[in-house]
Amino acid sequence: MLTIALSKGRILDDTLPLLAKAGIVPVENPDKSRKLIIPTCQEGVRLLIVRATDVPTYVENGAADLGVAGKDVLMEYGGQGLYEPLDLKIANCKLMTAGKVGAEAPRGRLRVATKFVNVAKRYYAEQGRQVDIIKLYGSMELAPLVGLADKIIDVVDTGNTLRANGLEPQELIATISSRLIVNKASMKMQHARIQTLIDTLRAAVESRH
Amino acid sequence: MLTIALSKGRILDDTLPLLAKAGIVPVENPDKSRKLIIPTCQEGVRLLIVRATDVPTYVENGAADLGVAGKDVLMEYGGQGLYEPLDLKIANCKLMTAGKVGAEAPRGRLRVATKFVNVAKRYYAEQGRQVDIIKLYGSMELAPLVGLADKIIDVVDTGNTLRANGLEPQELIATISSRLIVNKASMKMQHARIQTLIDTLRAAVESRH
Ligand SMILES: O=P(O)(O)OC[C@H]1O[C@H](OP(=O)(O)OP(=O)(O)O)[C@H](O)[C@@H]1O
Ligand SMILES: O=P(O)(O)OC[C@H]1O[C@H](OP(=O)(O)OP(=O)(O)O)[C@H](O)[C@@H]1O
Repeated sequence: MLTIALSKGRILDDTLPLLAKAGIVPVENPDKSRKLIIPTCQEGVRLLIVRATDVPTYVENGAADLGVAGKDVLMEYGGQGLYEPLDLKIANCKLMTAGKVGAEAPRGRLRVATKFVNVAKRYYAEQGRQVDIIKLYGSMELAPLVGLADKIIDVVDTGNTLRANGLEPQELIATISSRLIVNKASMKMQHARIQTLIDTLRAAVESRH
Repeated sequence: MLTIALSKGRILDDTLPLLAKAGIVPVENPDKSRKLIIPTCQEGVRLLIVRATDVPTYVENGAADLGVAGKDVLMEYGGQGLYEPLDLKIANCKLMTAGKVGAEAPRGRLRVATKFVNVAKRYYAEQGRQVDIIKLYGSMELAPLVGLADKIIDVVDTGNTLRANGLEPQELIATISSRLIVNKASMKMQHARIQTLIDTLRAAVESRH
């Protein structure tokens, strides 16, 4: 059995056409189904539908053999427990700092709200800046508006979410795309099968660019 | 200005009738609006709509003066930075361990998947049991089905989610309801106003029981 962990939304929408090139097509539309385990037309291959942040956890612990996760999620997750053999070049965006348009630098320490606390710590540590990091789980863009933080760190795609809230993108931390990740033991135990899948996906990615 | 942090869903639905008893009615339906800052018909009182897990963060840091948060969220958040003056007796549920129906105890260490990692650590430490805790952000009920964990810790209401996945509730960790929480500085600075609101809400809660 080969198990592939995916999250709903852009990653799922952009990964399904790539998987289809490898003959892997879910028997139900995962975006519409409430099921979290979805068989595919290929015997012995199934999809797990999990939260984006949970994909590396399922793969590293071997509950999934493969997964697709944003580089933002992987940077935050950290660790050396996963192979990351292929950039799928989907769900492209940027991980950025953002703040209020025209805001002055705060007098005291900079307060940064984000769900990417590990990324934030590393980013400011590399600059030798001491900041207060405030962990949030959602709606980061609210934090500067109500004085919870001076800046946020979040993924930016069109920039519409920032603009709608009077915020502007500032420093670029990383350009983001989704990556295929593979469990280390699975890569050994099912090497031929997984390597063939990686090669097919790589060809599919390249034929689109 | 008095700012009240709430999360969408059951907490919002059950808190709005209580706030209405205190004359606080949002000018827009927060469940339907995409706005995260919603004025109320009472001048100088506004609602912030944030993730359930973020409510204590907004209140402790003073970006909201008051908030409503589930006891599960508060137990996980921890800390001494908040007042918790009133049990609103809404959004009642139970924080429980759950596992596969009829599953045997694992041979090695118990693996427990949950978003309540602090609660889980405390719970098993009090029992002197060494367990592996696996942090998840959503869909805990999937973990035992795919071998990521032996048990989960999650909130249980009707039990339907567990049953639909072949799981059963096992140990009760805590009975849960939502609490009014108050920022410590706000409680000093706006004492009369906040105390009146607490008293009104307390009367509203008691009149329903
Ligand atoms: O620049 P934009 O095109 O406005 O995109 C940015 C938005 O996308 C991300 O949220 P996402 O939709 O991934 O969901 P999330 O809020 O659950 O992170 C991010 O948190 C922003 O809210
Ligand atoms: O016993 P039940 O009546 O089935 O309720 C339990 C469900 O409710 C909670 O999720 P919630 O709806 O709060 O959303 P969440 O998945 O975002 O936590 C919990 O995580 C279960 O999934």
